[in-house]
Amino acid sequence: MTNKLTLALLQLPVSSDVELNVGRAVDGITQLKNDNPKVELAILPESFNAPYGVEHFPKYAETVPNGPTCQALSRVSKQLGIYIIGGSIIEREGDKLYNTCTVWSPAGKLIGKHRKIHLFTMSIDPVNGGGVQFDEAAALTAGSEVTVVQINQQKVGIGICHDKRFEELARIYRHMGCSMIVYPSAFCICQGPMHWKLLQRARATDNQLYVVTCSPARDNMSGYVDYGHSMIVDPWARVQREAGEGCEFIVEEIDFDMVEDVRRQIPIYKQRRTDVYTKAKTELSKLNII
Amino acid sequence: MTNKLTLALLQLPVSSDVELNVGRAVDGITQLKNDNPKVELAILPESFNAPYGVEHFPKYAETVPNGPTCQALSRVSKQLGIYIIGGSIIEREGDKLYNTCTVWSPAGKLIGKHRKIHLFTMSIDPVNGGGVQFDEAAALTAGSEVTVVQINQQKVGIGICHDKRFEELARIYRHMGCSMIVYPSAFCICQGPMHWKLLQRARATDNQLYVVTCSPARDNMSGYVDYGHSMIVDPWARVQREAGEGCEFIVEEIDFDMVEDVRRQIPIYKQRRTDVYTKAKTELSKLNII
Repeated sequence: MTNKLTLALLQLPVSSDVELNVGRAVDGITQLKNDNPKVELAILPESFNAPYGVEHFPKYAETVPNGPTCQALSRVSKQLGIYIIGGSIIEREGDKLYNTCTVWSPAGKLIGKHRKIHLFTMSIDPVNGGGVQFDEAAALTAGSEVTVVQINQQKVGIGICHDKRFEELARIYRHMGCSMIVYPSAFCICQGPMHWKLLQRARATDNQLYVVTCSPARDNMSGYVDYGHSMIVDPWARVQREAGEGCEFIVEEIDFDMVEDVRRQIPIYKQRRTDVYTKAKTELSKLNII
Repeated sequence: MTNKLTLALLQLPVSSDVELNVGRAVDGITQLKNDNPKVELAILPESFNAPYGVEHFPKYAETVPNGPTCQALSRVSKQLGIYIIGGSIIEREGDKLYNTCTVWSPAGKLIGKHRKIHLFTMSIDPVNGGGVQFDEAAALTAGSEVTVVQINQQKVGIGICHDKRFEELARIYRHMGCSMIVYPSAFCICQGPMHWKLLQRARATDNQLYVVTCSPARDNMSGYVDYGHSMIVDPWARVQREAGEGCEFIVEEIDFDMVEDVRRQIPIYKQRRTDVYTKAKTELSKLNII
């Protein structure tokens, strides 16, 4: 039984035309699978089907799993017989909107749905890398469930973009037995140079697993300029592959034996001092701090 | 009231002569304070008074706070009127040995004692950066207390070397109100290039505080070769100062206003979803996993 997996990241441009965007994703996955029959998992960017912006969210929202974007992903996953981690779309359920990642099996079945848990709300001053002001919470509802999907023999945790700033979520995925965390993401060009690679390498080394991101391609004319640099970080925290800024597809084989390898050599998970942490947290909870 | 602090890192060589080592530390602190009267805090490396190695620990162990190394640190802190985070020494208490950091006030009083919580036991294969085999647990007893000291207006968390691999400890220090974590450390030249800077930047960005390490100088003839690269990382996770490999002293002013600045601009602490984490951990605890 092989512990290897060939995955494809599609760092796609995003226009205001949903059909065009979804068509590019479907065509891209099809082309990659045809050119590389070993590809078993395709990963799309956050908000791959529509422009990212609070003002756009209500207009582009779709239902899950019956909306047209989901149906297109279902069809192509079944047609090609591959897993798809479908980046994210804005999901409408009743009067609420979510930033939602859908995961599709090679049979075209929805096997996971992750609603972004940590909404992206921040205001970085212009002096710091150009600054960014964004308030996802003004338009979206946050998810309240962690999401683990099974891909071949591997458990894979799902997060979306800002979720990766929260090490407690990644820690939970490690507890749940994950060997990879995938974060479809759309970091801005302000945060990107500061923290994009750092956060992925941090999650990888603390939890000793693969961390994969997939970003939209950069469009400097867009209202929200994506950083790009979709990336695969291995369990030693080495950058195994990194895209540039433009439209780019990456096909890469990863080896999950490396997960056990680093966990054996640097046995930090067994060395955790839960007794000490619990005692300290108990003291803090008495002060109503945690 | 200023929120600034001038600190000095002493990346000192370590010989097998305790008196020589402690004398160098005392002389170095004295020289730095005389040359830079603004220095308020001096930081020493892990195991600064004796060679680092399981075979050396029993021979060089001292009592805290009455042993000669502690008494020398107490005297010089009082004489110069500065705080000292005294790297670490091997502490003997009864029949047990600990890797212990002592912290001294400008009045020469012991204001903190941190016993390394996570003992350094690992076996990295030679193919990975030369490899390292070390088993601190064969000789030492682990500490069971987190340690926060007050330095001027700041709360400072203390860890020793391998402690910094454990993000849960750093998170507790953030909960406790720390604006800086200091890790006297002696990373080896195998782990150093892989993870030294990454771990400090990870703790800094996840907890939005200063992270400071102080290493012994590199000695390629030693049985355990230290990485060097003592470092100050700011709350944006930028490397503010970094030493090279040899004997080197760094004097640097840091500004704690930056802590509040980054916490305001990237408000991740408020955005933590403790409801989600608690629910997931409760499920896991039913499976006896956490």
